[in-house]
Amino acid sequence: MSKLPNIATSIFTVMSKMASEHNAINLSQGFPNFPVDKRLTDIVAKLATENVHQYTPMSGYPPLLSKIAALTKKSYSRVVHPETEILVTAGATQGIFTTITALVKTNEEVLILDPSYDCYEAPVLLCNAKPIRVALNDDYTPNWEIIDKACSSKTKMIIINNPHNPTGKILKESDFQSLELLLEKYPNILVLSDEVYEYITFEEKHISANTREKLMNRCIVVSSFGKSFHITGWKIGYLTAPEHLMKEIKKVHQFLVFSINSICQVAISDYLDVVSTDDIKKMYQEKRDYFRGLLHGSRFELMPCEGTYFQVASYSAISNENDVDFCKRLITEYGVAAIPISTFYGDGKDLKLIRFCFAKDNATLEEAAKRLCTI
Amino acid sequence: MSKLPNIATSIFTVMSKMASEHNAINLSQGFPNFPVDKRLTDIVAKLATENVHQYTPMSGYPPLLSKIAALTKKSYSRVVHPETEILVTAGATQGIFTTITALVKTNEEVLILDPSYDCYEAPVLLCNAKPIRVALNDDYTPNWEIIDKACSSKTKMIIINNPHNPTGKILKESDFQSLELLLEKYPNILVLSDEVYEYITFEEKHISANTREKLMNRCIVVSSFGKSFHITGWKIGYLTAPEHLMKEIKKVHQFLVFSINSICQVAISDYLDVVSTDDIKKMYQEKRDYFRGLLHGSRFELMPCEGTYFQVASYSAISNENDVDFCKRLITEYGVAAIPISTFYGDGKDLKLIRFCFAKDNATLEEAAKRLCTI
Ligand SMILES: CSCCC(=O)C(=O)O
Ligand SMILES: CSCCC(=O)C(=O)O
Repeated sequence: MSKLPNIATSIFTVMSKMASEHNAINLSQGFPNFPVDKRLTDIVAKLATENVHQYTPMSGYPPLLSKIAALTKKSYSRVVHPETEILVTAGATQGIFTTITALVKTNEEVLILDPSYDCYEAPVLLCNAKPIRVALNDDYTPNWEIIDKACSSKTKMIIINNPHNPTGKILKESDFQSLELLLEKYPNILVLSDEVYEYITFEEKHISANTREKLMNRCIVVSSFGKSFHITGWKIGYLTAPEHLMKEIKKVHQFLVFSINSICQVAISDYLDVVSTDDIKKMYQEKRDYFRGLLHGSRFELMPCEGTYFQVASYSAISNENDVDFCKRLITEYGVAAIPISTFYGDGKDLKLIRFCFAKDNATLEEAAKRLCTI
Repeated sequence: MSKLPNIATSIFTVMSKMASEHNAINLSQGFPNFPVDKRLTDIVAKLATENVHQYTPMSGYPPLLSKIAALTKKSYSRVVHPETEILVTAGATQGIFTTITALVKTNEEVLILDPSYDCYEAPVLLCNAKPIRVALNDDYTPNWEIIDKACSSKTKMIIINNPHNPTGKILKESDFQSLELLLEKYPNILVLSDEVYEYITFEEKHISANTREKLMNRCIVVSSFGKSFHITGWKIGYLTAPEHLMKEIKKVHQFLVFSINSICQVAISDYLDVVSTDDIKKMYQEKRDYFRGLLHGSRFELMPCEGTYFQVASYSAISNENDVDFCKRLITEYGVAAIPISTFYGDGKDLKLIRFCFAKDNATLEEAAKRLCTI
């Protein structure tokens, strides 16, 4: 009788809870453990006594909408209209849920690449629509041929996640060209581009869907201040989309949440005057390199990491257990929590891979690595 | 092609925008204009530099869940389990949307009393379910006979709003008895009880659905810290529901928003140690009486106001215009914004009634009343 019979508590909740029960180092759920920028917390402290405690307008605090437009211009040379093409959301998750709910109808199909972050499927199911899983290649690049084969007149949306959680892959120029060719054949397919790690890419530059002329009119891009500014608890992100899609998204948003936390909107609006998104990349690249260096000599095999704050590692040299059991044992016996990659697959495919979050202070990474090197 | 073809920008957004464009006194959208309790803003300022910026657990910050359980016990003598029967939400609106989305299925019917606040219908439509409007009596009491007639095996949910926005009516013991009798006949019908103004009732005590033994197992109660603590911009409220329903609601919540703003959850948790909900009633009762007194001698006829921070008034002695036009003229010619009551009716019934929000400092109420007395 449940509308979501197969949905259980998310692996992030399960692992974080188990980590805290066993007092393990939590490299599972993705969130930073270092202090937030003092400039930002000072802004919050100052704002607390100001007149920032009542509803903002429905789409967002107007100065924040303008700053987001400026950021999108600076980062992607894209001009978005603050009033009609931007929506501030209670985190990227709410943005994704609201977009799917507004645009996907009964019996339509939504393509979700496998493996994928876990929040795309439930809203599709709640629309009485069909999530269609399409496997990425073994190196986690999209296989545009099988994506093309999965498309039909029933396909309403393709969800891409770039940089990709959990694998850290970023889409290349050639991927966008293939996507754009495919979309020419299917004029009704929309693209939902989850880019919450947009500022966390390393050797190569992130290509945002917001830079692609041919996607402009049919693409919704999801961004997250939580990820970019190390404030996952604030639950604040935003969508950019062309007006004809945004109109529908706002209709749902208005009755789903109406507006977003006012203090945090004003704080981020002020913070955007002083922060540079370039610092984010540098900081996380150092953390990635540091953590990878610390695990050098362990029995884990490290996969490439082009972006995000996640490192995928194979434990096949260590154990033959399934990845969920291995992660549980990692907590109970070694005091380190990670995420089993099988949980990102529609069919729970177990490749003996786990994901570590390296958005942690160096002392935490050192202690975790020390423990992981004893295995 | 829209999933919500008949849904436009909410009247609250329209009127607040028009009020600000014309520099009118805004008694339309419901939000307070007086300062927030300094104890609460001090807590926020202090918390800003603490470790409160990452995800809380999915159902809510655990100490806040315990405090909500204590508040529910104190206010309604109801024991709710913090972990399984409470969910912190991004405002009451998100709580309502999530509840309906989790529990209502294609082709089922949801009874909505007419007039009603505007956020119930959209989530029902998005579930491919049918909102069924049932008229309240002329004095805004529920007509249990016609509610009973509207019920059938297709009915999944009855939504009640107590105290009632916009009319300020509160449900009586006899209403609950009638509801409970009716529910005995229909064992599958659930009750969604929107009680966001639960602490704003005057001569008579508010009867919460949370006090009703016979509703316990089939009722979801919606509460709002935004309304109770004059912080509508914070977007924080909560649901209480029996575990079997809450389980389904949490499945949706997990992928709709995942968790709620962490700073505000911690702040309210701390604030609940010092604040008394009794003060709210007293403050608003004085405001109601003051505002009604100020309008004495105007040509508006004031309806009774048993609860909420809204005062409904008839302008039939003043004009024959429809209420939307009258409200627009009230802004442009008299500099006061109100809400036309027709917008709360499924069919836009125009009874020459408008709604004033009296959650304003006395100077604002005085100036508004002065203007209204010149009409
Ligand atoms: C919302 S909890 C999950 C956080 C996250 O983005 C991740 O760990 O992948
Ligand atoms: C979410 S804006 C509407 C606020 C409100 O509750 C009202 O004015 O009735």
